[in-house]
Formats: sequence, structure tokens, C-alpha cells
Amino acid sequence: MLFSQPVADATTWVSSLTPPFSFPWLSAHHSLIAAASEATTSEAEKSSLIFAGVLLSLVVIYFASKLGGELCARINLPPVLGELVGGVVVGVSALHLLVFPEAGADAASSMIVSFLERTAGLNPMAAESVFDTQSEVISVLAELGVVILLFEIGLESDLQELIRVGPQAAVVAIVGVIAPFAAGTAGLTYLFNVPAVPAIFAGAALTATSIGITAKVLAEIGSLSSKEGQIIIGAAVLDDVLGIIVLAVVASLAKTGEIAIANVIYLIISAGVFLVGAILVGRLLGPYFVALVDEMKTRGQVLLTALIFAAILSYIAAAIQLEAILGAFAAGLILAETDKRRELEEQVLPVADVLTPIFFVVVGAKTDLSVLNPAVPSNREGLILALFLIVVAIIGKVVTGFTVFGQPGINRLAIGVGMIPRGEVGLVFAGVGSASGALSNATEAAIIMMVILTTFIAPPLLRLVLKEPETVPGSESVETLSESKPE
Amino acid sequence: MLFSQPVADATTWVSSLTPPFSFPWLSAHHSLIAAASEATTSEAEKSSLIFAGVLLSLVVIYFASKLGGELCARINLPPVLGELVGGVVVGVSALHLLVFPEAGADAASSMIVSFLERTAGLNPMAAESVFDTQSEVISVLAELGVVILLFEIGLESDLQELIRVGPQAAVVAIVGVIAPFAAGTAGLTYLFNVPAVPAIFAGAALTATSIGITAKVLAEIGSLSSKEGQIIIGAAVLDDVLGIIVLAVVASLAKTGEIAIANVIYLIISAGVFLVGAILVGRLLGPYFVALVDEMKTRGQVLLTALIFAAILSYIAAAIQLEAILGAFAAGLILAETDKRRELEEQVLPVADVLTPIFFVVVGAKTDLSVLNPAVPSNREGLILALFLIVVAIIGKVVTGFTVFGQPGINRLAIGVGMIPRGEVGLVFAGVGSASGALSNATEAAIIMMVILTTFIAPPLLRLVLKEPETVPGSESVETLSESKPE
Repeated sequence: MLFSQPVADATTWVSSLTPPFSFPWLSAHHSLIAAASEATTSEAEKSSLIFAGVLLSLVVIYFASKLGGELCARINLPPVLGELVGGVVVGVSALHLLVFPEAGADAASSMIVSFLERTAGLNPMAAESVFDTQSEVISVLAELGVVILLFEIGLESDLQELIRVGPQAAVVAIVGVIAPFAAGTAGLTYLFNVPAVPAIFAGAALTATSIGITAKVLAEIGSLSSKEGQIIIGAAVLDDVLGIIVLAVVASLAKTGEIAIANVIYLIISAGVFLVGAILVGRLLGPYFVALVDEMKTRGQVLLTALIFAAILSYIAAAIQLEAILGAFAAGLILAETDKRRELEEQVLPVADVLTPIFFVVVGAKTDLSVLNPAVPSNREGLILALFLIVVAIIGKVVTGFTVFGQPGINRLAIGVGMIPRGEVGLVFAGVGSASGALSNATEAAIIMMVILTTFIAPPLLRLVLKEPETVPGSESVETLSESKPE
Repeated sequence: MLFSQPVADATTWVSSLTPPFSFPWLSAHHSLIAAASEATTSEAEKSSLIFAGVLLSLVVIYFASKLGGELCARINLPPVLGELVGGVVVGVSALHLLVFPEAGADAASSMIVSFLERTAGLNPMAAESVFDTQSEVISVLAELGVVILLFEIGLESDLQELIRVGPQAAVVAIVGVIAPFAAGTAGLTYLFNVPAVPAIFAGAALTATSIGITAKVLAEIGSLSSKEGQIIIGAAVLDDVLGIIVLAVVASLAKTGEIAIANVIYLIISAGVFLVGAILVGRLLGPYFVALVDEMKTRGQVLLTALIFAAILSYIAAAIQLEAILGAFAAGLILAETDKRRELEEQVLPVADVLTPIFFVVVGAKTDLSVLNPAVPSNREGLILALFLIVVAIIGKVVTGFTVFGQPGINRLAIGVGMIPRGEVGLVFAGVGSASGALSNATEAAIIMMVILTTFIAPPLLRLVLKEPETVPGSESVETLSESKPE
């Protein structure tokens, strides 16, 4: 379908018009086209099949996200929880429609690959490579989804308000790292006799908050721009940076038994320079952005110019060892300061609607619930450890809300609850710990269970404690992210 | 960054938090994190680098599309031509920022891969595989872009009007296949002494119109829903189907010397059944779609439900040997009949703004202009053949406009000019012909030149002959695709 240059490799052109698709009971009819390019179409065939696999995966993802989201909305749970659960149902834990090679799945276990083999003439020999690439495409789309989500969160955030609540957010973030880390490490060491290094690792895994899930729930209930919402977002962003630093510390501890101070200092400085630098440079460039966009005459000028900016900041954030989502958040925050905020918000909305569900469904699909099965004897030690970690994970974050000072009438419980979900960052700790050999299977499984439980429990809890956002003082009306329908 | 399941392969989790990014002059600082997962991160590293490569590619694509589009808009040329030319500038013909393995490029020739090696610590050993996968991701995004474009075109089209102009569109399509085929084949045989099979192949390559480019230009000047616009769209869709049939015929002729009637009949029946069936079933399901969407409470319900429908039809169209874009067009056409048309149009707009430029820039980037260089002796024979093919390609389509009957006052020249661009389909012919050994290098190069020229010349020509769309009778005002800015 793409227009390309056949001089170098003419076989490519065959792809668009002679896809290898066929229903087997009709396959005689296309032997002719296939014959014209027989031995040479394998790359082109693969491209067609990869695209077909992506189309089917998107059907599965959107169907799971809407079905899960709608069911949750009906029983008054956050839709994002439904998207996660929808992902679990179509993923590695149940239907195997959406599985990923990095979690150990192969083409034979993917129902989409089986479907392509049956309906689109996918050759089993090529199945593995088609499966790998189409999974990678879906993973990239999911990452673009969380990047767009954080860009949208940044747009909806209020830089002035974030700076105003900065000290409170910093306290929440720091207490939210220290309290669960200390309680988790001490408890594992003294109550469960876990050796020092795995105890420290598990404690560290309790520290980092998943900004994506909390922000999405806040947006769904229209509390993103409330004072509580802004403290949570500010703290979660700082927590993300702190999590990267904590990981660097414990990873070096597990590997060498000592802490590489230079690395920790580098991370702290680069994070600070990046966030402050991006905001300063962004404020400087803001008026030029508006002037440039006003000069432009072609369609999509505001959105695409903004996305170029967001993609550049995301790349820089990733390249200096932070995360791409921090760059996207900074870009949103900066552009929210310009006159184009309202227009951008409107235009980002459908793009986020299309990309963000991919992220949440993929998160669910990659979650393997088999570690939760108590019938498997090896899970039982992990289950007991997990129970302890879950209690610490929840209490350790809930207390942070009560450290907020100088804000009378604020919903302190909501702030603590908003910090509960560990999401992807906790799993990174389990992965690094396991790769370095520091964690036993039981401890690793316990960390994973803690992450699953806190991630799935936080959305309904947060909704419960933030039930009436309109009665919260300081709540503003910039709620385009909320669940209101267009009409 | 994604939340996944480390039990099977714990090394995966490392990817999100310890990307292999680093600036070399600072690379000492992350030896520590790398050490924690040393021998095992290659897959995870690759995923991070692929995402980084995709981010950079998107920056290049959006920058090229906006710069090219804006420059063209200023000199009163269609922005889509600017996007194509922008693609040529960043692509294989010039800057090598955006190159694709299927056109013979390797990682070493990609400037983005070099940039990743310099700024993000990409290991040259892994470069080839990162390059292949990130190119495949961009190709899939480009295909999604043209699918969304055709969905949008379908939404903007008027099924009643298409049916009303159906007979005229059918005549335009059929004459537009026969006239250039006959003139091209006869001319090559009698004027240039080209043997029969390559002459027939080159003649066949003159038949198919590129619906994407014409539709985009029509949309840009707000003429999509005019009578001329609807005849062109109807004829281009039929032309796409006819092109598939013609290819099947000539491919079998080149291979076996005879025509496989069964295959031709299958394609004609499946295309007819698909288009008519999709529209009938769609009209039946339309009210249920509206009722379902009205019942839904979560964000993006209209857009995602519509996209599920479009993705399913695209998959079916591809699986029965038609093209995915035909399914997307049919889906748009069907949903345009429902009450949700206006809402969908508004929501698809920014998604198309984000995805469609990827298609046009990639089309430009894959176009290798080196076949146009007359200083290379081997190009000269092709240049003379090309000159002949270009003349036939233009005249053979322009005459079709004058076959339109029973439409007094219609702009016949515009209809013929609208059918000129050959785009991707013509290249498929060159590719199949070259793969089957039927075409000489000169003939193949001539076909490619014809495709490039007709594709790049059609947008400004069409704009010229359709200059005043508002004076055309029958022109309606549903022009959300046009270039008007939001305010």
C-alpha cells in the first residue's frame, strides 16, 4: 500500500496488491498472483501480515477497553480499572489474544497468530517473526499512549499551582519513599528473617508510585486540577525521579555491595536540570510557539507543532536516563501556559482516546495472575510475604497524606490513597532484582503480587475517598479529561 | 515503561528504568545500572532504542510535513505536495533521515540510527535489528495513516450522492483503465518495438489511480462533497478494484502466458460482494451503532466504537485480497449515514492530523529520485520511454472526464485531472513485473518515473482546474477536511 522505490528490491511492491491473505477454502484463486512473485515475497508478505496482526490486536484492545470500561462505569468503579481488567482477560492470564514475547510467550500461544494462520494464510515458518514484530508495534503504540496521557496530564495541570503546592508535594514524595522503604525492609528482616539485600530490594520496590494510573483516575472523576490532584501529580512526578535514583542505589548495592555516589549525584542533577531547564526554556519559547502556530496555514498546525515539541523533550528525558513520560509531562505543562492551551486540549483529546487505552489494556494483558494462585505450593510463601508487603504498601503511602502542612480543609486521605498504585515501576524493581540474583522466587513473586494488588485496588479506593470533587475547595473547572460525554 | 510479567523473563523489566540511553561524554555514570543486568538486557535495550528511534522518526516526519506543507501553502500549491516533497528531502533521495530496509537501505545509511548510536548508546551490533523494527513500526503507522485518511474520506462522502453518480463514476473508471492501457501498450509495441508482455505490463501500470492523493487534494480545497469530487472518489474506488483485477490478469499472463479466468472472476465477485454487502449490513447495523454509543458512558465511546468497526472491515477487505483502505472507506461511508456523523468527523480530525502526514512523508521518503538523473547513461533509454508513458498517462485519464454524461455544467476537466496520480498502485505493477522477469530495467525505470511525475504533478494541476469550488453547482458545505483553521 505504501509508495516506495523498487529499484533496489522490486519484490517489495508486491506486498500491497498481492497480500498473502486468503481463506484456505478459496486459496486456489490466488496461486496465480503468488506465482508471479513466488520465492521472493517473504519480506513483503510479512509486512502485510504484521499490519493485519496490528489491525486485529487493535480490535481486541479497543473491544476489551470499552467492554471493561463500560462495565466498571456501570458499577461505579473507575473505567481505567475496567481497561486493566479487560486487558487481563484478553492477555496472558486468560484468553491469550494479546501476549508478548518478552513475557515468554511465543507465536504458538498467540490466538491472533493462530487466527492469521487460519484466515490470512500466515505460514507457520514465518509466524515467530511476524508475532515478534507485531507485538513490538503494539508495545510502541502502548508507550506512545502513556506518553500522550502524560502530555495531556501536563496540559491539564497548572504550573503555578504545582509550584505553589511544590513544598507539600515534595514532602509527600519523600515521606512516601522513606516510610514504606523503612517499614518494608525492617519488617522483612525482623519478622520474616529475609537477608539484608533482598529485604532492601523489596523495600525499595515499595517506594515508586505509578503516575499513569493515578492521574487517569483523577482525570476520570474531574479532580485533576483540584489542590489534592495537583499535590498528587506533583508528588508522583517527583516520586518517579526518586524511584529512578533508588533503583540505581539498590542495583549497585545488590551487585557490588556498595553505592556508586557519582551515579546517584548524576541522576539527581540531571533530573533537576531537565525539569527546571525545560520549564524555563519552555516559558521563554512559549510566545514564539504561539506566534509560529498563528502564522501557519495548514491543518493540524497547533497539534503537530506541540507534538514535535513533546517528542523532542521525551527523547531528551529518555536519553539522559530519565523516562520519556517525564519529557511529555514537561511539554504539556509548558504548553498549558500558552494561549493555545484550550485548543490543544480539544485536539489532544481524541488522539489520547485512541492511544491511551492501548497502554492500559497492554498493562493488563502483560499481568500474569498465575502468581496469585494459592493452589500452587511454591506461591504460598510468596503469598504470605505479599500480604505483608501489601499492608505496608498501603499504609506507607496513606500516611504521606497526613504530612501535608499549611493546607486547612484539604482531603489528606485522598492524597495518601492517590499515591498507592505501584504499577510498572514496582515491576522494574522485581525484574532488576531477579536479574541480579538478589531476590528469591518467593520474594520476587511477593513484589509482583503487591504491585498487582495496589494497582488494581487504588482506582476504586481513590474514587471512594474523592467522591464529591465539586465540594473540594480550590477545585477548578478545567476538566476536559473527565468522563463527560461530548453532548 | 510498560507493566509486564517478569516471572518468565525477568530481564524485560529493566528496559523501562534503565534504558541504554546515555550521552557518551557522560557514559560513566550508568555503568552501574547496566552492570546490574549486563548480559541479559539486549531485548529490553532494543525495545527502548526502538521507541527512541520511533520518537526521532516522528519528529523528522512532522517537521518535514509541516515545513513542506506550509511552504506549498504559501506559494498556493497543495500542502499534500509539500508533505510528499518534504518526505523526499528527508528520505532516501537526500538527507537519509528516513530510510527503509525494503528499499535496500541498511542501518548504516540511516541518519537516525547514527544519531541513536551517538546520543543513546546504540550498539552497532544491534543497529540492524533496531533499524528493521523501528522502520516496520513507522511503516505500520503510515499504513494506519492512509487507513484513517480513507475512513475520513468515507465519512465526508455522501453515499446517496455516490450512488447517484455511480453510472458516471463507473464510466470514468472503465474508460480510465481502457484508454491508457490501449494507448500505452500500442505505443510501446509500435513506436518503441517493446515486446508484447512488457508492453502489456507497462500499459497495465498506467491504469490505476491513487485514491489517497487525489482525495487529500479535494479535501484540502473543500471540493470533496461537490459532484465532481464524488465522481472522482467513486471512480477512484472502482479503479482501485479494477487495478487489482488487471494486476491479476497481467501477472498470470507474464508468468504462464495465459489468463486464469477463475481468479479474475473471484476478484470481481469478492469485490462486489464486499462493497455491496458492507453497505447493506452497515445500513442495517447503523441504528444499533447509534443506540449502543448512546448507552455508553466512558470517554471516546463514539470514536473507538467506530474505529473497531473500521478495523474489522479493513481486515476483511485485506483478507479477501482487496485492500485494507477499501474496508476503511466503506466503514466511513456507512457511519456517515448515521446521526453520529458530525461528532465522528470532529473526533477523527485530530487523529487523522497525527497519522495521515506519516503516510505522505513516508511515500516521499521511499521515492528514489536517482532514476530521474539523465547524467546516468542507463537512465536515458528509460527517460525516453518515460516521457511517452507520462504523456499517455495524463491524456489517457484527462479524456475520461469528457465521458461523463447527463451532468450539464460539470467541470469535466477536473474529473479527468483528478484521476491522474498513479501513486503506490503503479509501483506495485513495476514491482510485480520486475519480480516476474517480464520487464527490462529501462521499462521498469520508465514506469517508476511515470508514477513519480503523475503523482507530483496532479495536486497542483487539480487545484488549478478546480480553483473556485464555491461556484460549482452541487457543492455542499460539509468541508471539515478543508484547510480552514479552527478559529
